[in-house]
Amino acid sequence: MKLLEERIVKDGKIGAGNVLKVDGFVNHQIDVPFISELGKEFYRLYKDEKITKILTIEASGIGIACLTAAYFGVPVVFAKKTETNNIAGDVYTSEVYSYTHERTYTIRVSKDFLSADDRVLIIDDFLAKGSALLALLKLVEDSGASVAGAGIVIEKSYQPGREIVESKGIRVESLARIASMEDGKVTFVD
Amino acid sequence: MKLLEERIVKDGKIGAGNVLKVDGFVNHQIDVPFISELGKEFYRLYKDEKITKILTIEASGIGIACLTAAYFGVPVVFAKKTETNNIAGDVYTSEVYSYTHERTYTIRVSKDFLSADDRVLIIDDFLAKGSALLALLKLVEDSGASVAGAGIVIEKSYQPGREIVESKGIRVESLARIASMEDGKVTFVD
Repeated sequence: MKLLEERIVKDGKIGAGNVLKVDGFVNHQIDVPFISELGKEFYRLYKDEKITKILTIEASGIGIACLTAAYFGVPVVFAKKTETNNIAGDVYTSEVYSYTHERTYTIRVSKDFLSADDRVLIIDDFLAKGSALLALLKLVEDSGASVAGAGIVIEKSYQPGREIVESKGIRVESLARIASMEDGKVTFVD
Repeated sequence: MKLLEERIVKDGKIGAGNVLKVDGFVNHQIDVPFISELGKEFYRLYKDEKITKILTIEASGIGIACLTAAYFGVPVVFAKKTETNNIAGDVYTSEVYSYTHERTYTIRVSKDFLSADDRVLIIDDFLAKGSALLALLKLVEDSGASVAGAGIVIEKSYQPGREIVESKGIRVESLARIASMEDGKVTFVD
């Protein structure tokens, strides 16, 4: 998606450890009118899939998921990273290894909000090694719901996440696919 | 707001310790079309205030803030609860005591995303004792930005949060004001 690629080049910053920082418009400050355009694109890609629910993971997926769900007219469920007494009753759980925070954590979704009747679109900000996306897929599988696919804002295509997820038969749509980040320059997959 | 009061009566649950659970439509599963109606109401209330930015706190404030910001056409900034290498450089910090999790934590906003030029609307899901809202106000004060007010989804009016915040000269608009929760029954302020 040209609009997003241009924005990444303009406002993305490559930090220590070859981390792409997009905290000015995606995951700390959220440029809502801009992210809403990305939501519209996810809708265009998945509108025929009879989506009943959008699943994401706190915290940086929530804004994108909500602005996407507004086009579909469906609820968002976000997996929680902390044990909280805000979730009552039984939960589906799954493990994620965070390369950003260098630890494994458990994510949870209440069994009340995912069921075999659901057709789920998974939305997240980044896809790199696939750890978070695979954990979300496991939650959906455990619930008996079906998965229409994943909608990713930024994919690091030089990492194996997409390949691993696609090998499970899951559709992956990424709005920007980064081929490399070398010498402070971002190059996209053609 | 009648729509919200009816929904709380219908789908809210009063849990142990007199906690009102609205995880079916506000803070775990987010009923996006419904929350978007609340965003429209916040817009009606604050549309003449020349808002440049909406500030909230992760995680459950983010969806509401984004769906509200869509009406204003402005960015959302969400305060982070964890130290993360996704925030570069200098930050404003503030302390929040969470009665839900029974601990104090530090919230952070990058200095890049709040400045003296901003006119800020603070959005959050709950107002009870006011700890989170006061912490967000301190971040705004430290940045030199001005505060148009706070937009709260559910206020527990039998707790002192509103009074404390209003005594600082801050406008508070809550879409549902709970007068009491006794014997499993929610009563609203007239």
